[in-house]
Amino acid sequence: MSYTAEDLWQVVERVRERGVRVHCLTNSVAQNITANVMLACNIVPSMTSSHDEIPAFIESVDGLLINLGTLDGKRRHGIRLGLEGAAKKSIPVVLDPVKVDRSGIRMEFAKDILRENVSILKANMRESAGLSGAVREDTLVVRTGNEDAVFGREVTHIVSNGHVYMDKVTGTGCALGGLLAGFAALEPNQELAMLAALAFYGVCGELAAEQAKGPGSFTPAFIDSLYGLEAEQFNERLKLETMNNKGGVVAV
Amino acid sequence: MSYTAEDLWQVVERVRERGVRVHCLTNSVAQNITANVMLACNIVPSMTSSHDEIPAFIESVDGLLINLGTLDGKRRHGIRLGLEGAAKKSIPVVLDPVKVDRSGIRMEFAKDILRENVSILKANMRESAGLSGAVREDTLVVRTGNEDAVFGREVTHIVSNGHVYMDKVTGTGCALGGLLAGFAALEPNQELAMLAALAFYGVCGELAAEQAKGPGSFTPAFIDSLYGLEAEQFNERLKLETMNNKGGVVAV
Amino acid sequence: MSYTAEDLWQVVERVRERGVRVHCLTNSVAQNITANVMLACNIVPSMTSSHDEIPAFIESVDGLLINLGTLDGKRRHGIRLGLEGAAKKSIPVVLDPVKVDRSGIRMEFAKDILRENVSILKANMRESAGLSGAVREDTLVVRTGNEDAVFGREVTHIVSNGHVYMDKVTGTGCALGGLLAGFAALEPNQELAMLAALAFYGVCGELAAEQAKGPGSFTPAFIDSLYGLEAEQFNERLKLETMNNKGGVVAV
Repeated sequence: MSYTAEDLWQVVERVRERGVRVHCLTNSVAQNITANVMLACNIVPSMTSSHDEIPAFIESVDGLLINLGTLDGKRRHGIRLGLEGAAKKSIPVVLDPVKVDRSGIRMEFAKDILRENVSILKANMRESAGLSGAVREDTLVVRTGNEDAVFGREVTHIVSNGHVYMDKVTGTGCALGGLLAGFAALEPNQELAMLAALAFYGVCGELAAEQAKGPGSFTPAFIDSLYGLEAEQFNERLKLETMNNKGGVVAV
Repeated sequence: MSYTAEDLWQVVERVRERGVRVHCLTNSVAQNITANVMLACNIVPSMTSSHDEIPAFIESVDGLLINLGTLDGKRRHGIRLGLEGAAKKSIPVVLDPVKVDRSGIRMEFAKDILRENVSILKANMRESAGLSGAVREDTLVVRTGNEDAVFGREVTHIVSNGHVYMDKVTGTGCALGGLLAGFAALEPNQELAMLAALAFYGVCGELAAEQAKGPGSFTPAFIDSLYGLEAEQFNERLKLETMNNKGGVVAV
Repeated sequence: MSYTAEDLWQVVERVRERGVRVHCLTNSVAQNITANVMLACNIVPSMTSSHDEIPAFIESVDGLLINLGTLDGKRRHGIRLGLEGAAKKSIPVVLDPVKVDRSGIRMEFAKDILRENVSILKANMRESAGLSGAVREDTLVVRTGNEDAVFGREVTHIVSNGHVYMDKVTGTGCALGGLLAGFAALEPNQELAMLAALAFYGVCGELAAEQAKGPGSFTPAFIDSLYGLEAEQFNERLKLETMNNKGGVVAV
């Protein structure tokens, strides 16, 4: 299955129109930019990690983001509560196992979580290396990097948009997790949802970088692009490739 | 009682000159922008929520902000300590019951707190709906929204300044709480203090939005406006209306 | 010993090339800007304060920042763990005793910490006043303010770069701590490392202020400068003075 720019853009437009809600159990460094990225796309964030509040908040959201940055015992327990609530409601769960390669405890916890109701695993090359064995068949894997990949059952989609400034602004990768959860909440076709979010994010990054003088002025320009990007700009810049998992390009 | 643009602006000028100190027991998402908004207005923030530090910090401040976003048991206890310290010093306390409508525990806690020494309740329509019965006679109510209202004993003041981008930047509403606490700390006439802060904030938002391309570039422009707004710009844009609580406009 | 602009600039260039890693046990308000300042200079930050993760993270870093803002019992314990790990690895430790003058508990803790393996104490006038007796002979003292001073054994270096906007943006001082730790990790001559970082930071602040309309637009411009400053700009603006500790200017 391959998708057109038009297919992807329609998902972006529906996210902007509908205003889905996503609860984020994320690290303290990235909370602010995650919320701002989401708000720019009309995804409404909530962020409490308080054990006695998580169940009530989960009840009124459409998706859940679990991010393992700055992870402590309290948030680990909060994440368990979040997963429980998400399972009851059958809402999509995105896991971002930030820097699992640098902490044994975090790695073990990520593996545990992957055995439960994680819909989407979003990880870079280093993070996913240690986790691949723990991923369930029904979890969709998204690998981020210079090229972002969505590993479907039969095909692999590659998005090559983005800009190096995105690695120079803390929380940009974490904030993408919030976007993925919002797109997954809205679009039942999870492969399409992930592709739309990744391509949209990357194109906005490129546009913003052209207007910026460095990673400082990049950030406001990036949020502006997420808020205002138009179909034409998206179509012109999209770099999407789909490959058959047995080798061979399906569509470019 | 109705006020002129001149009355309001004098409060702004005195806040800028005097440099009052406000302690903020606020949520982790909004800490950064709250501090930056306050610093731009020469209100000096402190932000520790550590139980063993709160009493000492409260001793050297002129006002207290209590914000219920991302609320856990630890901060609930910290808030009790803050209220105790504020009562001893008789400094104004602003309560911002963020999203109480989405968490029963938070709602109950907000009601409890409202029975104590809260000087000003700042809430939007949804939040204030569940709380109205719990508000003491001597607590001044500020309702934020497209129109901000200050409910005086005899009159209601309506400020209609502001811009939609303010809802697209996380923590903008929470940061206003820090400003309200600073203005309340400086100006004994609490109705006037609230009006001045709300109008100033709204006018700065409008000005910033005109210079911005989206909610990303809005934020730096907004902080610049808070720092540099001039009397003339304020006077030109102020939209203030005062109504008799028995109906009828007092002054426009 | 006195240094030239060229000496200082070479340290900046090597930091940019090498990509050292620094773990930051810092306050929640400043985490975001600290990470962004560091990333702009190619210093890779990690920020977990979780007790069970700190040892593993310390193992893979080149320097440690300890910042006492918003300090609670949990972070105090985390800081002990960080110091232990840093001692084992013999990596430089920078201590920023934020607002110790406003909390007795924080002051006592800072004194305790200063008896251990703190390489560099970075404090402003008020903070350092109460701490001077507790500083070990082998701890290098950096005093920040309108003029930044590095107190060497035989000489004192004064850097007079910077801009008032830096005091109007929360976390700018805290973020400097992350930079100091990165420079200290790379350059064994700790006096030179501190001078290079302070001068670089101050010059970037001046440049950014010239492009800004206020403290809001200052921040992105500041990050851009940290990322892109060139040798020529640095040389032109550097204001460095070195004085013999027995009085008398060594070099200007």
